[in-house]
Amino acid sequence: MKKEYLYSPGPTTVPPEALSVMGAPMFHHRTARFRSLFGEVIEGLKDVFQTANDVLVFAASGTGAMEGSVANVCSPGDRVITVNGGKFGERWGQIGRAYGLDVDEIMLEWGTGVDPAQIDKRLNKKVKAVYIQLCETSTGVATDVEAVARVVGKTDAVLVVDAISGLLCDEMLTDTWGVDIAVAGSQKGLMIPPGLACAAVSEKAWGLVEKATLPRYYFDFKKHRKSVAKNDTPYTPGVSLVRALRETLALVKAEGRDTMLANAATYARAIRAGMQALGLELFSRAPSNAVTAVRMPEGADGDEFVKTLRDRLGVTFAGGQEALKGKIFRIASMGYLNQFDVLTAVAAVEHALRAMGVSFAPGAAVKAAQELLVE
Amino acid sequence: MKKEYLYSPGPTTVPPEALSVMGAPMFHHRTARFRSLFGEVIEGLKDVFQTANDVLVFAASGTGAMEGSVANVCSPGDRVITVNGGKFGERWGQIGRAYGLDVDEIMLEWGTGVDPAQIDKRLNKKVKAVYIQLCETSTGVATDVEAVARVVGKTDAVLVVDAISGLLCDEMLTDTWGVDIAVAGSQKGLMIPPGLACAAVSEKAWGLVEKATLPRYYFDFKKHRKSVAKNDTPYTPGVSLVRALRETLALVKAEGRDTMLANAATYARAIRAGMQALGLELFSRAPSNAVTAVRMPEGADGDEFVKTLRDRLGVTFAGGQEALKGKIFRIASMGYLNQFDVLTAVAAVEHALRAMGVSFAPGAAVKAAQELLVE
Repeated sequence: MKKEYLYSPGPTTVPPEALSVMGAPMFHHRTARFRSLFGEVIEGLKDVFQTANDVLVFAASGTGAMEGSVANVCSPGDRVITVNGGKFGERWGQIGRAYGLDVDEIMLEWGTGVDPAQIDKRLNKKVKAVYIQLCETSTGVATDVEAVARVVGKTDAVLVVDAISGLLCDEMLTDTWGVDIAVAGSQKGLMIPPGLACAAVSEKAWGLVEKATLPRYYFDFKKHRKSVAKNDTPYTPGVSLVRALRETLALVKAEGRDTMLANAATYARAIRAGMQALGLELFSRAPSNAVTAVRMPEGADGDEFVKTLRDRLGVTFAGGQEALKGKIFRIASMGYLNQFDVLTAVAAVEHALRAMGVSFAPGAAVKAAQELLVE
Repeated sequence: MKKEYLYSPGPTTVPPEALSVMGAPMFHHRTARFRSLFGEVIEGLKDVFQTANDVLVFAASGTGAMEGSVANVCSPGDRVITVNGGKFGERWGQIGRAYGLDVDEIMLEWGTGVDPAQIDKRLNKKVKAVYIQLCETSTGVATDVEAVARVVGKTDAVLVVDAISGLLCDEMLTDTWGVDIAVAGSQKGLMIPPGLACAAVSEKAWGLVEKATLPRYYFDFKKHRKSVAKNDTPYTPGVSLVRALRETLALVKAEGRDTMLANAATYARAIRAGMQALGLELFSRAPSNAVTAVRMPEGADGDEFVKTLRDRLGVTFAGGQEALKGKIFRIASMGYLNQFDVLTAVAAVEHALRAMGVSFAPGAAVKAAQELLVE
């Protein structure tokens, strides 16, 4: 009878509307039926990204689209700027180096965000692309993408934003801000299982794609662009996931993108207030609305905390990664979530701290969260 | 009330056991629960591939693992041999050229298979790898992989086999024959939706991986090997598909790999006999048991035939690709299929030919097929 609650920063809870279609019989993808489905999904994604640019969809997890955003844009030895303020910013640097690029990596203290002036200072005619995160999932830090876009937009460099965990939680106005490539994954705000990745690609970026000589095949943007123009894919698409995505995009449309963003902001604020009411310290200096990272109290182990939550309470949070292992825990507020789910997450923290013998004022977190949720 | 029947050479029918778990609630992958699931899946795949080698699993369709089998094995300018006897053999050449390799492409008349002596003749010290298909899906041609492995095994080159459509239909003894990399996709004999790709990698291949300098990241074999040793993945896995795969691998185990292969042989023979009883010509000179390609009768269009089957009868076959468009149709006999499904496919051909005004002896195909199926 133990119920399960999923607050990991991907995969997130999949709504029953999407789960049920994944159990429907399989069908062939080289058909009008698939093209009609895929066309709807592409339209829905354009709205989510707030873009009129081409949106490409890959059968892959988000990292695949990140790699594609390097291999399709750059040539060997090209200079790129990346921001390493966590595990996913670090990944941009790793991909760049794997492809033989000249990576100018801005090293940040994890938990802090990049100052757009730091990027501005390093921009010059040699820089081909700037790679950042909308939300750095490992630390819960949001980037001021609009401000970064303003400095990059003055140059010939393209701005590539990993919006995998931030999308539909932190604002992302791809076209208005001038983001050249925005990358998403399916298992976060898009609310379906992992296995699809997307990239919205601007005309400025297509200009670079034409000249880029790094090798690519499965993630070849030009091949995907040509296919998507006919609501098709160059290689076999993830049919069951595309079908599920149509359902969750319909939910996004019904709820409204703006409402989802406003809710995510409220939920994240309530979680933060709850944690602070327990005397816990927030890890992020620029908190994202997608995921909240919280420092473990002195002497308590974050991995044990996460395990206690999962095994005793059926509640899945994420722990810290790499240097943050055992030091923080992370609560996602992405996707299929309402005010009661948020209250449950906050309440679960109190239960688990109690189980670990940490002293606090019981009810303080839920009261603080509820004050904001009731508004 | 129209029932749907899927005989496309991928995706294939997904058994209800696998469909139902895809509709189960999502869970986090960085957990003992996932590792236990993934470990079971890897064991099942090793049995399917008949290998003790590492089996890597990617969230991607089969082409992703094909690309990985090039990027992880070769360095720029390396010479490789590919066999182009159809769309998927052509793909090996395209990937090789995309990565700047020196591709020695054996051009075959589509519908014919490669003579191992042709490969033997071209092998020399410069050749790094040989890329072939177990079943060339576009033509229904099976390769004598064992014989090719014998000639390649005498050299330092590795043999890479795209077993995407052939696996569990045409025999594939990875270790016994000495296949260095065998690639599979999830939506064929493995009977789940598209979105997972696998590669079984030999020690000889790992030796090349250590030295290969082509760039790769998402499909980095070494990273995947390190993770799979802990029943984990370097990037977010396709959780719902992995879960479904455990179910179909359990079905394979219960049925028995040998029984599945024997059945596939019988089913393909029955389909061939049925088509020949109608006076239709088989396209493949070396027919695979995974998919049967049949020439359209003179004056009848294959695309119209496929459309008639789908729209009027709810039966999905595949048409011809590229130069074969409109000229052939293809009936898959992969995966979740029994003798009645085979009879239905054969019967559907009679119905569709009749609808198109082609003359034949009604019942001839089902009689010929049934004679073999009853045995």
